[in-house]
Formats: sequence, C-alpha cells, structure tokens
Amino acid sequence: MPKISNLGARMPSSPIRKLAPLADAAKKEGVKVYHLNIGQPDLPTPQKALDALRQVSRKTLEYSPSEGYIGLREKLVGYYRKFNIDVRADEIIITTGGSEAILLGLMSCLDPEDEIVMVEPGYANYISFARTTHLTVKTVTSRIEDGFKLPPVEEFEKTITPKTKAILLCNPSNPTGYVYTPEELQQIKEIVVKHNLFLFSDEVYREFVYNGKPYLSALSLGIPEHVVMIDSVSKRYSECGIRVGMLVTHNKEVHDTVMKFCQARLSPPLLGQLVAEASIEGTQEYSRACFEEYKARRDFFIKGLNEIPGVYSPVPEGAFYTVASLPVEDAEAFCRWMLTDFRLNGETVMMAPAAGFYETPGLGKNQVRMAYVLEKEELAKALKVLKAGLEAY
Amino acid sequence: MPKISNLGARMPSSPIRKLAPLADAAKKEGVKVYHLNIGQPDLPTPQKALDALRQVSRKTLEYSPSEGYIGLREKLVGYYRKFNIDVRADEIIITTGGSEAILLGLMSCLDPEDEIVMVEPGYANYISFARTTHLTVKTVTSRIEDGFKLPPVEEFEKTITPKTKAILLCNPSNPTGYVYTPEELQQIKEIVVKHNLFLFSDEVYREFVYNGKPYLSALSLGIPEHVVMIDSVSKRYSECGIRVGMLVTHNKEVHDTVMKFCQARLSPPLLGQLVAEASIEGTQEYSRACFEEYKARRDFFIKGLNEIPGVYSPVPEGAFYTVASLPVEDAEAFCRWMLTDFRLNGETVMMAPAAGFYETPGLGKNQVRMAYVLEKEELAKALKVLKAGLEAY
Repeated sequence: MPKISNLGARMPSSPIRKLAPLADAAKKEGVKVYHLNIGQPDLPTPQKALDALRQVSRKTLEYSPSEGYIGLREKLVGYYRKFNIDVRADEIIITTGGSEAILLGLMSCLDPEDEIVMVEPGYANYISFARTTHLTVKTVTSRIEDGFKLPPVEEFEKTITPKTKAILLCNPSNPTGYVYTPEELQQIKEIVVKHNLFLFSDEVYREFVYNGKPYLSALSLGIPEHVVMIDSVSKRYSECGIRVGMLVTHNKEVHDTVMKFCQARLSPPLLGQLVAEASIEGTQEYSRACFEEYKARRDFFIKGLNEIPGVYSPVPEGAFYTVASLPVEDAEAFCRWMLTDFRLNGETVMMAPAAGFYETPGLGKNQVRMAYVLEKEELAKALKVLKAGLEAY
Repeated sequence: MPKISNLGARMPSSPIRKLAPLADAAKKEGVKVYHLNIGQPDLPTPQKALDALRQVSRKTLEYSPSEGYIGLREKLVGYYRKFNIDVRADEIIITTGGSEAILLGLMSCLDPEDEIVMVEPGYANYISFARTTHLTVKTVTSRIEDGFKLPPVEEFEKTITPKTKAILLCNPSNPTGYVYTPEELQQIKEIVVKHNLFLFSDEVYREFVYNGKPYLSALSLGIPEHVVMIDSVSKRYSECGIRVGMLVTHNKEVHDTVMKFCQARLSPPLLGQLVAEASIEGTQEYSRACFEEYKARRDFFIKGLNEIPGVYSPVPEGAFYTVASLPVEDAEAFCRWMLTDFRLNGETVMMAPAAGFYETPGLGKNQVRMAYVLEKEELAKALKVLKAGLEAY
C-alpha cells in the first residue's frame, strides 16, 4: 500500500471541526448540542439574496469567468467605497470563500521555507494554509491578560529574518475579537515598509466593530503595493455555504499571478456569486439589524461568561468570537468530556479548544474559542450548561 | 515593492483561458467568436436541477459538512453502482469541482520533488496543480499518428525512479478523447502494483464513451488501496459553474488525510450540492439525449475537420475534445491571429493551442485542442471560418 505524503501526515486537524464526530454521536443519542465551536451564524440570509435564487433564469449553469462576474465585482467597488476603500473592479478577484483567497495569495507571494509572521492566537486555518504551502510560521503572542491587544512592535521586529516575506493580520480578529487601533496599524505599516514585506489583511469581519470607531482597512494605509486584502460575504450576509470570497490588491503583479492559479481551478461558484451580488445591494437595514443583534449578544454572552466562577473572557470589540480561559487544566479534554459524558437535561455544549489557534506548543491549553452566533435564549441555555459542566468536571 | 513567489512566476497561464482577453476584445468590436477552446457545454442543465434551485426553502445558507452532504453522497453510491463501481458514501468526499479533488489528492499523497507520471498531451491544469504542489512531472508521450493511444508499457517503466509515487490518467482523455482499453488499464495496474504507486484516475467523462463498450473504472481494477478516483458533475449534467466534484478512494488513510485539507477550507459549495443531488436522480433520459447529441456532433465535427486541407484529427472515442494538427508552424500564433486579425463575415474561432497540453517543450506546436460543445449548425459555421482562416493565413 503506498504511503500518504509527509505534508498530509503533518497537516493539523481543524480544532473547530475535529470534535464534530463526538457531537454527531451525542446528537444521535438525542442530546441537544449548543454549537459555540463554529462561526456559523443563525441569522437568516437576506431575503433579496434568497429571492435571487428563485429568479435564476439561465438554462445552463456554465463556468463563470476565473476572476468572477464583473457585475459582482462592480457592486463590491461601491460597497468598499463606504468603508473608504478605493479599489477598481479589476483589482478584485472572486474566490471560493476567503479560504481560497488566503491559499492562492500565499502561493502567489511566498515560496516554501519563506517565513510569515502571524499573531497567535490566530485563525487556525491560517496555519493549515501555511503548512499546505510549506511556509515557516513565526508568531507573536497576544495575551489574554492584555485583552489580546497587538504585542509591542519590538515583538514583531524580533521575529523578522531575511526569509520573512509577509505579515498576516486578521482585523477584527478571529478568534479573539480584537480590533487593531490606527496606531497599531501604523506600526505594522512601518515594519512592512522597512522590511519590504507583504501585508495580508483578513477583513471579513469589518462590519462587526462594536467600539463605535470607523473601520481602518489595510488598503487605506498608503502602501498599495504591499497589501493583499482577504474578504468574504460569508459572515456579513450569513451565507457561509455559498463559498464566495475575494482577494483584493492594488499590486498588479500579485493580481496577475493569483489569476494564473485561478485559471487552473477554472472558476468560483456561479450560484454563490448570484446570491452575493443580490446581498450587497440594498441590505443596509439588514446589516444594521445584524450588527445590533451581534452587539447585544456579545454584551449578554461575555457578561454571562465572566459570571461563571473561574471563567475569564476579555470584552471583544469586534467579530463574533471570544477566547476565554476556563478553570480546567486541559480545555480539549474538557471539551471532549462535555460532548461524550456531560448532559444537563439532555443538553450539552460544543466549544473549540483554543490550543489549535496557537502555533507555540503549550499555549492556550486552558482556553476555548467560542462563537456567539446563537440567539440570546440559546446562549443563555448554553451558559447554564457550561456552568453546570464546569461544576461537575 | 515586495516580489511575487518563484512558484507564482513559474506557474503557466492556462492555454484554455490565456487568449480570453483577445476574444473579449474581438467581441467588443462586435465580432462573433465560436468558442472551440473550452469544454463549456451549451446543452441545458437538467430541468429537475434548475427546479431544485427554486425550491430551496432554507432561510440560512449555512456551511455544509466538509465532506459534503450525506444525501448527495448516498445518491452517488447508486450512480456509481450503474458503472460497476462499488463504493460506500463514507468513501466519497465532495470537492469544489474536480479541480479541488486533484489538488487535495496530490497534496495528500505526494510531497515536493516526488515524481508523478502523466500522459501527454494531457489536461493542462494537471501540470498547474503539479507545479502548485512542487511535484516533478514525468511524461510519456502519446502520438497523434497513433490516434493518441497509450504508449507501450515500456515507456512508463522508463520514467519510473525511486521518487515516483503516482501515475495520473484521464479516461476518457481530455484533451484527446482517447478511451483506454481494458488491456491498457491492466498494464497500468501491473506497473502500479510493481512499484507501489498511487493511481489517480480522472473519470469525469465516463458517460461519453462512443465505442459501445462498457466503461472500466480504475476503481474496478482490484487495487483498492492504490486508486484515487476524481469525478465531477460539471460535464455530464452541463453544470460546470456549480463547482461540485468528488474524490473517491477505498484507501482510508488517503481519505482521512484529504479530509484534513477539506476541513481547512471548511466546506464545498452548498447550492451546487443541492443542484448536483437533483441532477443525479431520474436523469437517465437526459443523459441518453446528451450522449446522442455529443456522438452526432463528434461524427459531424471530426469529419468536417478532416475535410479541411492539411488538417488532421484522429476520431476520438470519448469525451468531447479532439487534438488536431493544423497546416501551420505555430498554432498559438495562428490562434492569436484568428482572434485579432481574421474575420469571416464578422465571425472568428477561438481554439486552445495544444502546446500547453504537453510538458515536453516543442511538442504539439502545430496542434490545437478543440471542444465540440456547440450545436451542429454552430460547429458547421466554425469549421467554415477555420477553413477560410487557414487559407488566408
């Protein structure tokens, strides 16, 4: 029997999804599982977008252009302008979710053994994509006791070597919900320019910033040749399943290189693009309602978490996640136990062990990432189950 | 300005899509372009599948499972049984088109600098995916004068080194339309077993075999641990745009490894899966009609091609492509000239230069790949334009 690749053997399992079989088993027993593990919003997709599906009149569901439909890209130009992001339609490439945008961006800009600097805890799949492309990941660590704010700029400087080619930021951050300040972004900019790096900026949560300040995109930092912005409609329109993301860059060489990879995979999903286009226009009211809902949930959920003895969560200013510490030694063992052994009135809670969001071994062992994408009543019940679980553990 | 990756610089442009800007420019001038360059069928998607879109009742277009919906995978089990392919639903992974299945399959089984053996001319994007994964491609060359039949088994043996980990076949072949005989597949099997290799078998055209013989899948060769089968609904239901493919293997270790990559990209397209599932059931009549249509087109188109002085095409037994030689020295220059300079009554033809389907430099220079996915009247006009173009060139 031939052997799998070393790359495949080394690939990490998703900390978000690897406990899914345990959750499935619990559900089969009739247990209700509150999913705090995954950022799958329960909010409805905009009605206009759902209607667009019913109005598809084409008779052949053909390939779309490799760069995505121009209609969608032109709508995005208008959308970005509202966030003071000034781009042209031919600087936008439609991808199969933000995931593909990251992967193709990394492949286009970095070679195996090149180094990329990330903040940990960070989105676990960044590490997967870096492995996939054989990169070396260097991390600077943000700390729960500092509210996960950006570590001092010297920490970044320390990680940089002649092999460093890029910094990757997620702003607002998944998994911590941290929103970078303009001063922090200015510091990042200086490092990027000084060392001639690419700056990958994942901005899929830009609509969910709860501190009242205007959003500052990396594309507005005045370093157009350095920035590769990652985006997605998944979260903001509650349509994660359609797999429509974007890679946006003013750097024409990067754009043209990404396009070669895009041509190889032919085209992004056609139906998702139709839905995404309908989602963008005339959904301001929808977006406002989503924002208010998540903000209210955040206030409710974080307060509730911090009321559980031994649990601590900073107050996230953006996105819809938090990383919280639990009064346990091994959060993964606790998460497993919750799924396999603990039930409160036939209910339990699924969380993502946070260790998988750190690159440095041993960090985050007593932490979990939780997404507050359930409605308040459900969150209240989930908190009750979590509290009882911790007491029983 | 930071520099793109060496990988990106080396990535080939798609021979199928790289002339697209020239075609777009011609269209802007009002020129009608017959697209023989791309396998984008003009046949309608099954009505049942289009109806499924109108019946989507979910309110949130959420992530699907990383491995795809069980409903779709179970329908596929029944579909494969009709082709004497015996697999379980948990041996099928739904991917974002056949493209992703190839990419993730390669990543799961081969490491950088491992060698993979392909037949040339071959599907151009195989080479792109092999570059993406830093593999070394070895080729055995099939010749137009032999009707592109599989080269003698000794040719394969010659390419194999201790670094060889896989053979990749496309059966029926894109771009040549060649269908491998059971004897040829038996020879491949022997090599695969002897050298303990993986056999990647791209079988997306299995429904389009015009020689009247039953289709033999690599999964039916009795070497279950070796075979990774690639599939897609794109061509057989004329729904290329929905991006739904499959990776099927009995090798559990490979399956589990591919799943780790699948988790990193979260999920395959939700809407495409709904369409694909509706396409599979109750479309026998549809499939029969498509088959008859392509067969009639093949007969008509290949005959017409061979009637043009200096043009030669073997008669392909499968798929809906052919590689033909033209009476020109540089087919790419000719293809460009057709798009930029030549018009017959305001019409021209777009073809894919075949050199991009060969790995060995210099081969296929006077050849083009053409897809007969237009209706007969259009094909007749395209042949007339091509003939006039060749006369004028």
